[in-house]
Amino acid sequence: MPVLVLCGSPAAGVPSAPARVIDPSTPIATATDQGLTRGDGVFESVGVHHGRIHDLEPHLERLAQSASMLDLPAPDLGDLRDAVATAVREFLAPLDAPPPTVLVKIVYTRGGAEASPDRPAGSPFGFVYADEFPDPRPARRDGVSAITLTRGYPLGIGASAPWLTIGAKTLSYAVNMAALRHAAARGAQEVVFTTTDGFVLEAPRSTVLVRYGGMVSTPEIDGGLLHGTAQRAAFEAFEARGFTCDYRAIRVDELASADAIWLADSAFLLRPLHTLDGRELAIDRELTGAVVDDMLARA
Amino acid sequence: MPVLVLCGSPAAGVPSAPARVIDPSTPIATATDQGLTRGDGVFESVGVHHGRIHDLEPHLERLAQSASMLDLPAPDLGDLRDAVATAVREFLAPLDAPPPTVLVKIVYTRGGAEASPDRPAGSPFGFVYADEFPDPRPARRDGVSAITLTRGYPLGIGASAPWLTIGAKTLSYAVNMAALRHAAARGAQEVVFTTTDGFVLEAPRSTVLVRYGGMVSTPEIDGGLLHGTAQRAAFEAFEARGFTCDYRAIRVDELASADAIWLADSAFLLRPLHTLDGRELAIDRELTGAVVDDMLARA
Repeated sequence: MPVLVLCGSPAAGVPSAPARVIDPSTPIATATDQGLTRGDGVFESVGVHHGRIHDLEPHLERLAQSASMLDLPAPDLGDLRDAVATAVREFLAPLDAPPPTVLVKIVYTRGGAEASPDRPAGSPFGFVYADEFPDPRPARRDGVSAITLTRGYPLGIGASAPWLTIGAKTLSYAVNMAALRHAAARGAQEVVFTTTDGFVLEAPRSTVLVRYGGMVSTPEIDGGLLHGTAQRAAFEAFEARGFTCDYRAIRVDELASADAIWLADSAFLLRPLHTLDGRELAIDRELTGAVVDDMLARA
Repeated sequence: MPVLVLCGSPAAGVPSAPARVIDPSTPIATATDQGLTRGDGVFESVGVHHGRIHDLEPHLERLAQSASMLDLPAPDLGDLRDAVATAVREFLAPLDAPPPTVLVKIVYTRGGAEASPDRPAGSPFGFVYADEFPDPRPARRDGVSAITLTRGYPLGIGASAPWLTIGAKTLSYAVNMAALRHAAARGAQEVVFTTTDGFVLEAPRSTVLVRYGGMVSTPEIDGGLLHGTAQRAAFEAFEARGFTCDYRAIRVDELASADAIWLADSAFLLRPLHTLDGRELAIDRELTGAVVDDMLARA
């Protein structure tokens, strides 16, 4: 059963009701909530693998960074940290054994015009929602297919145009969802976004990793991308196995000669692409499995 | 007092509870609502000027078009039309006289995983929210200042990349809101978005109109812009006064020699820019006032 924890008003310095577990089907956002009506808020998705919360601190730090990019009041990370712990504890409590993956979504929205028992009018609020994620192991083993789609931007525009909020994980994900539907209609499960000037960006919910021999690369994040939490964990695992990892501008036409391409994210950790734009790619099950095992073994 | 009308599940063909007026401070979206968590839904803002609803049908048609671009089930426009009428009637009923402007927001979101008394699980739902808008007459008369900001896209990319949802009025407005905050921090109230290849797009919540002598132009909409409902009404009013109106690609550098620039939208109808990027622009109060009067006189 999903668990919902409502954090009254988790902005640091705003009087807040204590976080509380509520019926997960309870509506929580009003008609004037800026998250609902404008996608004006931020979020994180935290993986809980075999009962262990992964990389919570990097997720909380990135949430705070995203909030700052949207000029939101700084969230109270202590409140949210406690809410995540509560949600995971409550989710696992009735189970005999933890499922392979639970996904915990942390949402922090600018809020609405109305006061509520939990918070004053016009103040942001947060919530944490934990639910089981479909078993990620088949996709880790067998891979997924993807197509490249343009994200419409040139490389690095986020650095000079911060209002495009490119490096923030905002609630405005309509383009990401539309791209995934576009891919699904063409028989592909995933999308690799590209720039108008021919560089690789990211997937709608994942970071892209590309291997050439002993080198694993991911697009440089000063281009305004999200810094992937799972990608950082994957880099540690690859480096522990003797690979050299780097951040660099990756041209789309380089993908054709890659030895392997993976998507990294908190839910799947690491999925190989078995097909890109209709072209088959080799999958190294042993290497992927070993890296995933290392990632799973992290605290 | 604001009025909120909840339309159970206004997708055509989905069994729906009748629309009902509820306390406007009632939370209505759950933690899994895709509108709240992904900005995955569409909206319209309808102006009610001096008690009269303006251009409801074009707004409903555009809502349906936006929904189609997001692969949402077609909304039941009859349900939403009735909900708007109910919201406006309830809003005006207790008042001695209608205010200059009431703004009615129609939202249609993909919905959440939970069933509710109003709708089955996983079905979209709509709501209509009516509230008084701050008196728009000072801005119509005195104008506003704006800055140009890049939208990051080249002209016309929406035509070949529909997943960018450029012509849809989605709930993913984080970039629009961030751009307005960026402008406000620089002392400007508005933004004129531009393309990376030097063309004029639109404002975050308005259409841009540019006058040269007897000619009034707005950016062509096949570039993937929203077709502004107020802009269409303004064109009719300009044409009735002898102006020639057209849709065309407008270069940013043409703005420097414009005789006038306006923003058109459902709330303000028409506002002149008195300043763009720090440069003062002439305001023709008589012409703006006459066109606004024509727009107000429409049914």
